This record gives sequence, C-alpha cells and structure tokens, in this order.
Amino acid sequence: MSRDDQLSRLNEFLAIPSISTLPAHRDDCRRAASWLMEQFRTLGCPVVQLMEGEGHPVVWAESPRIPGMPTVLCYGHYDVQPVDPLTEWVSPPFEPTVRDGNLYARGAVDDKGQVFTLLEAYRSVLDQGGMPLLNVHFIIEGEEECGGRVIFDRLRAEPERTAVDAVVVADMGYYAPGIPAVYTGLRGLCYAEIHLRTLRRDLHSGSYGGVAPNALETLVRLLADLKSRSGRINVPKLYKAVKPPSKTELKAWKSLPFDEARFLEEEVTGRALTGLKKYSVLERVWALPTFELHGIRGGFTGEGAKTVIPSQAMAKVSLRLVPNQGYEKVGKWLTRAVERLAPDYADVEVKLLHGGDPVQCDVSHPAFGVLDEAFEAVVGRRTVPARAGGSIPVVPELQLGGAPVLLTGIGLPDDGLHSPNEKVSLQQIWDGIEVFAKFFQGFAEKAGSKH
Amino acid sequence: MSRDDQLSRLNEFLAIPSISTLPAHRDDCRRAASWLMEQFRTLGCPVVQLMEGEGHPVVWAESPRIPGMPTVLCYGHYDVQPVDPLTEWVSPPFEPTVRDGNLYARGAVDDKGQVFTLLEAYRSVLDQGGMPLLNVHFIIEGEEECGGRVIFDRLRAEPERTAVDAVVVADMGYYAPGIPAVYTGLRGLCYAEIHLRTLRRDLHSGSYGGVAPNALETLVRLLADLKSRSGRINVPKLYKAVKPPSKTELKAWKSLPFDEARFLEEEVTGRALTGLKKYSVLERVWALPTFELHGIRGGFTGEGAKTVIPSQAMAKVSLRLVPNQGYEKVGKWLTRAVERLAPDYADVEVKLLHGGDPVQCDVSHPAFGVLDEAFEAVVGRRTVPARAGGSIPVVPELQLGGAPVLLTGIGLPDDGLHSPNEKVSLQQIWDGIEVFAKFFQGFAEKAGSKH
Repeated sequence: MSRDDQLSRLNEFLAIPSISTLPAHRDDCRRAASWLMEQFRTLGCPVVQLMEGEGHPVVWAESPRIPGMPTVLCYGHYDVQPVDPLTEWVSPPFEPTVRDGNLYARGAVDDKGQVFTLLEAYRSVLDQGGMPLLNVHFIIEGEEECGGRVIFDRLRAEPERTAVDAVVVADMGYYAPGIPAVYTGLRGLCYAEIHLRTLRRDLHSGSYGGVAPNALETLVRLLADLKSRSGRINVPKLYKAVKPPSKTELKAWKSLPFDEARFLEEEVTGRALTGLKKYSVLERVWALPTFELHGIRGGFTGEGAKTVIPSQAMAKVSLRLVPNQGYEKVGKWLTRAVERLAPDYADVEVKLLHGGDPVQCDVSHPAFGVLDEAFEAVVGRRTVPARAGGSIPVVPELQLGGAPVLLTGIGLPDDGLHSPNEKVSLQQIWDGIEVFAKFFQGFAEKAGSKH
Repeated sequence: MSRDDQLSRLNEFLAIPSISTLPAHRDDCRRAASWLMEQFRTLGCPVVQLMEGEGHPVVWAESPRIPGMPTVLCYGHYDVQPVDPLTEWVSPPFEPTVRDGNLYARGAVDDKGQVFTLLEAYRSVLDQGGMPLLNVHFIIEGEEECGGRVIFDRLRAEPERTAVDAVVVADMGYYAPGIPAVYTGLRGLCYAEIHLRTLRRDLHSGSYGGVAPNALETLVRLLADLKSRSGRINVPKLYKAVKPPSKTELKAWKSLPFDEARFLEEEVTGRALTGLKKYSVLERVWALPTFELHGIRGGFTGEGAKTVIPSQAMAKVSLRLVPNQGYEKVGKWLTRAVERLAPDYADVEVKLLHGGDPVQCDVSHPAFGVLDEAFEAVVGRRTVPARAGGSIPVVPELQLGGAPVLLTGIGLPDDGLHSPNEKVSLQQIWDGIEVFAKFFQGFAEKAGSKH
C-alpha cells in the first residue's frame, strides 16, 4: 500500500469529529468506531466487536488465532479533545492538512495517528494468506479524553482480555526529536468542578455592590487560596502522600538532554516557568502533583457591560497525581480543603467528574528489549526511560493481567496535543509503522526461539 | 382609559426584547423606539423625533407648545438588561405575566414600566382638545444599560434641549415600601475588561501542568490582589479621592428605617453582608466605591473534563464611584494598578468599556416641594432624601441646562432589576401615574401663580 493511500485513509479517520466530551458528537464517536471496525474486517480479523456500555463503545479486534504463539494487546483511543478556540486553527481541525511535512488535525497525534501506525504495522506483518506472525489483539476506546467508564467496566468484568504476553500503549511520544522513549510512570488525574453559591439570585451591582457577597469574587479568592504564589497546592496531606522518584530515576533524568530555554520558548510558548523552584523542571512535570484551573463560569461574559453580582459560580479544576496519590483519596482531600477555605456565607460543592490513578511501569521485562531493538533498527536509537506528566486512566486496568505494559509512541514535544493546530510529523508516522512491525516480528521470533 | 387597556399596552412594550448590549437585538431596540414614537403621536405630540447616532436611537417628543408655561423634561430608557440565566425565570422574560399583583418581565421596573407611568400621567393631564397644562418634553434613550454615547453626543451638541424648568428622571425607586424618595446622589461607574495572556497557545495540563504559567490562574490571583478579604480595593488613590457625605446627609441616613436582617434576607438573599465593616451598610452602598467581578472568560467551561492550561483569560469588572471620582481618572488608576499587579510573564491590557461620573443633586429647588406634595396626596407620605448605589450615566448631561433634576420613581427594593424574575408592583404603577400627573398639575399651578 502506497503512502498516499495510507495518508488518505488516515485522513478519513481524522475527518470524523469524534469529540467524546461533547454530547453533540455522540454519533461521530460511533462513526469513528465503525470506521475502525471496517478496517479490522479488511485486515482479516475474524473477531471484531463493539464492547458497549453507558457511553461511547470500545472497539475490540482479534487476529486469526495462531496456537502456541504469544499475544500482544494494542491499546489506543479514537476519541479526541474539543477544538476551541476554533479561531486559532490555521486549517479547520477536521480537515486534515499537510504543511511542511506535518499533518494538522485534531487527533493527528492524540491518538488517531498513533492507532493508525498500529493498524499499518499489523498489515505489514501479514503473510500472503492474511495470517500474522503472532496473535495481535486491539482494544481502541472512545472515552480516553472524557473519563468514561466503559473500558474499565468491561476489563474488570472480563479479565481474560488482559491475560496476554505484552500490552502496547501507543498514546505517548518521543522524549525529544530523535529520542524515542518508554515511560516508567504516568501522572494520575482528579478532575473536579467547584460549585459555589452566595446568593439566591443575581443582584444589580449598583444597588448592592459593596455589601452583597459576590459568588465569583468568593470563588476567585478560594481558588487563589488553593495554590500559593510559589506554586504550592494548599490541599492538606497532598505532598505527604508523594512517593519520590527513585535515585536511579533521578539519575537517569539528570542525564537526559534538557534545554530549558528551548522548552520555554518552543513548547511552553511563554516567558517564564512557574511552580516549585526547588525541584527541577522534569521533577515538577513528572514527579509532583499539580493543581490547574481550566475554566470559570458565572455572571456575564458576553459582549458589553452587564453589571451583575453573580449569585453562583463554578470552576473546573484538576490535580495531576503521582505515585501513592490515588484519585479517590485526593478527591476527598480536595473536597475537604475547599469546604475549609470557603467562607461561612457560601455554599460549596465539589463534584468529582473523573479521575485516574497514577501509574508505575517496571521496564525490566524482555519485551522492552524487543522494543528497543525495533527503535534502534528504524531510527538508530534505543529508548530512554522517562515519565510523563499526562494521564491515561485505563493503564492500571491494562496491567491487571500481569503483562508488561509498554507505554510508547511517536509523538513529538511540539505536537500541540489538546491545543489548536495539533499535528503529527508524517515521518514519525512512517517510522512508527516500521517500529511496531519490527516489534511484532521481534516478539514473535523471541517466542519462537524459546520453543 | 381602563387599567386593563393600560396594562395591555404596557405589556406590548415589555414584550419587545430590546436588550441594548446584545448586537442580535439591534432591531428589537429599534422596534421599542418605534413603539414609543407611535405612543407619542397618539398622545398628540406635534414633535416626535428619532435622535440618531452610532448606536440605538433616542426618542424625543414635545407636547403642543403653550407659551408662558414652564417646561418639564421627562427622562427614561426603553432598553433592558440581558436575561441570562434564562432557566431561572418563572415566566419567560418577554412574556409579561401578572402574579400576586406584580407584573413580571424584563424591563418591568427598569425602565419600561416607569416610562409608561410618565406617558400615562401626561395623557391624564390633557384637556379635551388634547392640550396639556404645561410643556412636557420626553427624552427616552436606548443605551442606558449598555453605555452607548448617542444621548451624550446629542445633548452636548444641542444644549437647548436641557434648557428647561425641571427634569424628571423616572428610573429610581422608593426607599422602602410606602416610603417614596428623591435622590441626592448616584454612584458613577467605570466598567472594564482585563485581558491577560501568558502563553502563545493553550497547553495540555498533563504535559505542562506544574511549570507553564496558566493565564486563568494568573488572572485569578490578580483579581484576588485587587480587593482584600476585608473589602478594601487595592487601586492606589481611589479612597483618597472620596468626597465623604455631609453631616446633614449622614444624619438623614441614620434616621431612615433600616432593618439589616430583612435587607439581608429579602433583598440581598444571602447569609452575610460583606465590605468595609467600619462603615454602615447605607454608607457602603451609597458613599463608597466598590469593585465587582462580573464574569471570567478563558479555558473551557463546557460539559466534561477538558484538561487545558489556558493561554489567555479575560475578566469583566466594574467600579462604582462616588463624588470626586471621575470615571476617566479612575479608569487610568485601575489600568495602572492592574499593570503593577500582573507578573512579568503576563501581558495585560485593560479595556475601558464604559463609564459614568458620579452625580450630586441639590434638592432645595421648589420643584422638589411640588413632587413631595404629589406623593403626599397619592401615597400619604413625602419623599425622603436618599442616595443610590446605581448609576444613570446621562444625569450629568441632563444637569447641563441648570434645571433641577428630580431623581425619583416607583420601584421597590425587591423588584430584582437586572436579575431573573424582574417585576413591578401594579399598584406602584397606578400610584406612579397619579403622582406624576399631580406633579405636572402642581408645577403648572405654581408657575401660573407666579404670573
């Protein structure tokens, strides 16, 4: 299959606006799932299923069964993040466009492009009869970006699905251009809404300004109190629960190339880094919890000058969590901290929207050696052990069967995932297809040599 | 004309969604102006004009000229506030509905209901030939709620329009049920947007949470810094510029009935009053500046869990101003305060959207005695001198001609202006019509007796 054909198929996938968090895109999510099922059927998979639940379905596919050979389970997700602010996109988010060797579209790297590398790698290891070298299963979910529970519920109910020899999670990126990585840890996530009310009704700021408690102002003060100017999160117990990185990890991180000026200018795109200064930048991003404010609702934000004292307000916030900080526990601490900080005249409620526990991955299993050899053969370099600041909530469930979980992928640091103008490098796509194909081959050979 | 007929005509006026601040309602504003022009024509006014400018037009009408008699200029506005949150309205805001003797609709009291009392009062003093007792001019604007400049520009260009014997501004309310008021002062307004940017693009909170400056968090901290927990506004020079109320005023305010528990429960609808505790509640609302937060935009506030670090954010804020605090001067101070409080890594811009200077009115002119007699005759009580926390930006322009400006009206404290379920008491409407009719008669008689 030519690269043009491959690109046009990837573009089909990217053109489907499968934004899982927005109810209006429910049917689009289902269309993305159907598109995948059709691909798996074309690839000759005898088992292609929708795993249904309350939410967007999971696509499950199995290659033709080859007895005696190992099984690799490949994970990815077909859903994408919302696209706002839409005006900042150079080309529309669901009209994939190539510029300077990069493919721009929502989901280009997170995660449709990466799911596509798995499909094409699998295609390339099929023999003329359509039989693969080993058993490959696919589990591609549609709720990674919205915190749905379908994949969790199904993996807990059917643990045999994770009873495999290795799990490949292709939802990550290189440490830096030219430096592929495997990940020893992911941060967890505790996403919440803080709802606050001070008045039964909105008031006119002329008549009552100066004496009526403004819900938005009260919320702003509470949010300012939840995190100090220096970056310290004011949630009791939070820092005590941090399991610090091992000396080996800290040493490995120190040896990684890191250009803070480039990171600030090209990736962060700001003028200064924030956060707890006594920790290195990698430690702040990989090994410490964070508290971020995502949005604030309340009052009036339209055109013009409405002079309202808002009676209620809401903030969307999240904490990123590191090993030892289970999200349910942290959700309770956050709730208590908010209740403690709110003044007596305000009613507050913390609604926990979604969460994922932090992840640790032991990278000593031989499967990691196979992946290293694949990367070395294709891009001339073995992986470095890194961590990631982001979360893939399902990873703990994928670990349930005891198989090694290889967190890897072909993203680059400047891909802009979750941002306007998300992109993927086409060269990374072509390399990724080759790397995963070599991984399948190497994994099959290794198993064959043991027999 | 029967009250049923009057009510059905008022309902026509209220049904027009003339929200001046929303561009989508531009034509509705024009419809409200047309409706008024038709009323004035029906009342026999020989001069009915639209005063046009860049914005919503002002309706101007003049009664048939009666030489030698004084002229009263009546001010009101036909535009209304936005209606959100729409879900909190018991009946739709533009479907006027009577419940328990109150008429519920956006604009019921602010200000269409009050404009209507002026029209009906005028109708009731016409003789059988359609001639009034004195000269009455009407100036009804469409930008009171949005800070438009049309009426300002026109009154400055045509000063003869305010060269009258008295100006009645029917956009105020009773001090309390049964206690009519005239107002010796109004607070001014300085309404602004604070725009802040920390990053060139939005980021993923997983990858960059902990090190990337979050624009929303930076804005929240800046807003918290702009006003202390005790209610003190952190804008240099602001308090020094306050002209304190006179001893006479302070004494008059102390003698006004004020039930703080009722005020808190029924009007503020909260559990505690905020603001500078060393001042009385009336002083805080009438004689001190305030800083209120109206809305915050930035990041993601839709359904679900988008983990974005916003690159930019905006807050809508306003200050209420008291005598000696011109809004242009205060706008500069606010801008400087924001620039000083913003961290180096943030770009900030303060956009001044609209403003009005604070107002002082001398209530010693004989016209106030005529108004007192009218209220006494209709509701059994003379007016009390009060101030108001709100602003009517055009009042300084109405004072230009040197005529006494009578700030008065028939609103009640619990009318909920600018809030969902805004209402007006129908009894207040009927009383208001009678009061203004008696005022016209009394004013004409007083002038007649001088001749």
